[in-house]
Amino acid sequence: MDPIRIGLLGIGTVGGGTWEVITRNAEEITRRVGRPLTITRIADLDTARAREMSGGAADVTDDAWAVTRDPDIDIVVELIGGYGIAKDLVLDAIAHGKHVVTANKALLATHGDEIFAAAHDKGTVVAFEAAVGGGIPIIKALREGLVANRIEWIAGIINGTTNFILSEMRDKGVDFPSALADAQANGYAEADPTFDVEGVDAAHKLTLMAAMSFGIPVQFDACFVEGITKVDGTDIRYAERLGYRLKLLGITRRRENGVELRVHPCLVPSARLIANVEGVMNAVLVQGDAVGPTLYYGAGAGSEPTASAVIADLVDVARLISADPGHRVPVLAFQPDQVSSDLPVLPMDDVVTSYYLRMRLADEPGVLADVTRILADERVSIDAALQQEPGDEENAADIVLLTHPTTERAIRSALAKVEGLPTCTGEVVLLRMEKLS
Amino acid sequence: MDPIRIGLLGIGTVGGGTWEVITRNAEEITRRVGRPLTITRIADLDTARAREMSGGAADVTDDAWAVTRDPDIDIVVELIGGYGIAKDLVLDAIAHGKHVVTANKALLATHGDEIFAAAHDKGTVVAFEAAVGGGIPIIKALREGLVANRIEWIAGIINGTTNFILSEMRDKGVDFPSALADAQANGYAEADPTFDVEGVDAAHKLTLMAAMSFGIPVQFDACFVEGITKVDGTDIRYAERLGYRLKLLGITRRRENGVELRVHPCLVPSARLIANVEGVMNAVLVQGDAVGPTLYYGAGAGSEPTASAVIADLVDVARLISADPGHRVPVLAFQPDQVSSDLPVLPMDDVVTSYYLRMRLADEPGVLADVTRILADERVSIDAALQQEPGDEENAADIVLLTHPTTERAIRSALAKVEGLPTCTGEVVLLRMEKLS
Repeated sequence: MDPIRIGLLGIGTVGGGTWEVITRNAEEITRRVGRPLTITRIADLDTARAREMSGGAADVTDDAWAVTRDPDIDIVVELIGGYGIAKDLVLDAIAHGKHVVTANKALLATHGDEIFAAAHDKGTVVAFEAAVGGGIPIIKALREGLVANRIEWIAGIINGTTNFILSEMRDKGVDFPSALADAQANGYAEADPTFDVEGVDAAHKLTLMAAMSFGIPVQFDACFVEGITKVDGTDIRYAERLGYRLKLLGITRRRENGVELRVHPCLVPSARLIANVEGVMNAVLVQGDAVGPTLYYGAGAGSEPTASAVIADLVDVARLISADPGHRVPVLAFQPDQVSSDLPVLPMDDVVTSYYLRMRLADEPGVLADVTRILADERVSIDAALQQEPGDEENAADIVLLTHPTTERAIRSALAKVEGLPTCTGEVVLLRMEKLS
Repeated sequence: MDPIRIGLLGIGTVGGGTWEVITRNAEEITRRVGRPLTITRIADLDTARAREMSGGAADVTDDAWAVTRDPDIDIVVELIGGYGIAKDLVLDAIAHGKHVVTANKALLATHGDEIFAAAHDKGTVVAFEAAVGGGIPIIKALREGLVANRIEWIAGIINGTTNFILSEMRDKGVDFPSALADAQANGYAEADPTFDVEGVDAAHKLTLMAAMSFGIPVQFDACFVEGITKVDGTDIRYAERLGYRLKLLGITRRRENGVELRVHPCLVPSARLIANVEGVMNAVLVQGDAVGPTLYYGAGAGSEPTASAVIADLVDVARLISADPGHRVPVLAFQPDQVSSDLPVLPMDDVVTSYYLRMRLADEPGVLADVTRILADERVSIDAALQQEPGDEENAADIVLLTHPTTERAIRSALAKVEGLPTCTGEVVLLRMEKLS
């Protein structure tokens, strides 16, 4: 079937990631969609870099209007950012009947109502999963996954820069300017960090989520915004002692007479999952009347995470354009004729993981050396050990070993030998361990 | 526009929740979908209870076949469970051209390939968001939200019963039989808990997620399954000392030559978010090549959370049936003409939250009493306090107060008075606090 033809406006960080992921995973994506997605044109002022990145596989121009008006383009992806030229280009693409995918929260939070109305009039789609929470599919969750619910409130860590700074202040006991410098050195904060540290970026995102949650207009101007520049490390430490962590939260809550819409530093009980979201990661906690609390966590920015969301939107629009049963979302995520048996389920013996081993060994010299030699013979290496002192009346002790990753086959073989040692009492307890990093 | 007509098979826990939520939130759901969803027929052997729950608003029968074959029904919702009659009814509904929504993971994990093939042949949809992770929109995330990614691995806490038991064993130091009895007393475990505690239920869910992640057939028989009945509290405590928590995880991972598919108790570093998912809650951690790790958290079971997922599926199918631009997923989640200005954004003064207040007060008798009187006058009540001992050379000390919820107006008014006290030095630091529970 004909590919979906995409025009990319801007091939910087997110645009470059979009090109990279859509190219690298082309086969996987086509297996899911049933129709190829192809970036046929790229507009960027730096045409040399655009040509280098796309390696001649797309037409490159420095004239974005040539892309928004190209009759062969199905979807325009706006990754320029800001309120200026980006707004004009988005409106021009819509006027020319294009569907638009954008990551531009600033634009949508301030001019969303105008843009959405224009798209509605022309019967085109404006998709913006990448505008909130980077690669986390939070827009889809709010719009589709939680559609049964009356949303009661949302609380989100939706700016990675500020979360990184607050994490640094807490972990290292440094003050705001020093943590900000750290964030800048790590590439997590821009040279002019105002939009992030003053809470404006979070407010843009919150404004969009509030509109979707409560069926209200997009109204950034009504959002209360307080950033983290005045946060004092003293309060982070006091809060900690009282059982709380300090996070920059975007909060919107439905009240009888209106909607709370606010971004500010906020204490959260340390036991809450969202209080444990550290560094540049994002998380959004949504309270629905039926589902209760659900939380969505992931990278809130970055080239490929954001590209993941841009491409998810492209696929949604592609399915819409190809609206026949063969292009519905397939029941098992891949097209039925693309379900593969080439990838068998592996037998447990071939599984690779780490292990926790607890054994009871005689309290004699050389006993542990016997065990470690058996493990070494099976190429199992040890990550950590815990030895219990034997009790007064005991002549044996518990030893716990954590291993580095190895096969189930190797560990089973080793354990059979360990259990055969005269100094080992009973069976060795085996538990598997995953670092999940 | 004509309502979507739904036939409900089974009005037990989840069926009852579906009736309740779809009725209670009918207006909100119609604002989002643009077309009402109506349960017109209910089949249940207990017709008396079905009539009582539906209050005469739906036709009730004890003959499920009358529903699967009713030409006026658009979507059949199967909430009977098990592999027996449920399978025949699902296949019969498909044969009669109905779309099917089901929460039945056991059925789909064992007979999914047959059922999906039948639906594909008839051009109907089988939707099963409610089959995995209760109300968490994890199926939608895997199928749509992360569509750009090559999924690398998934690790999930996807059985609430076993997570509750392991949490109890850890928190209370009790053994497995006692924690199981606790779970049963709380209604979190069935009288025969085998499917849950032996890991079979988690394996059903994992099997479905693996098929969707890797484009492989549904193959429950190939899943390695080890439950928690032999878990010894000793190991939970040792693991804790080594910095790990023990969870029953469903893990599936793409390897070069195949796919790991396994459910077993597993140590996870305590610092990981998923290690902190306690009680009956579920969470699924997905690693994609572009997006990195994302995590989805929420209630994995229960009447209304599962109903939330059932209804999300109903809406997806309703939009498919009504496939014209007016029934696409609306850009701001609600139909454009349903965006309401009746719900204004509240001024910050009307926001209600709790507060952290840090002030520096002279170390003299009666000073704290002055402050608390001012707060009481504004009807602000105190939840906790922390008093720093003054240093040797100091005649003032830091006092931190946490308040119960109150309005921003009240707290600002109180603080102005506190700052006016001669015994108060400098400004009071105000931070907002949310319990998020």
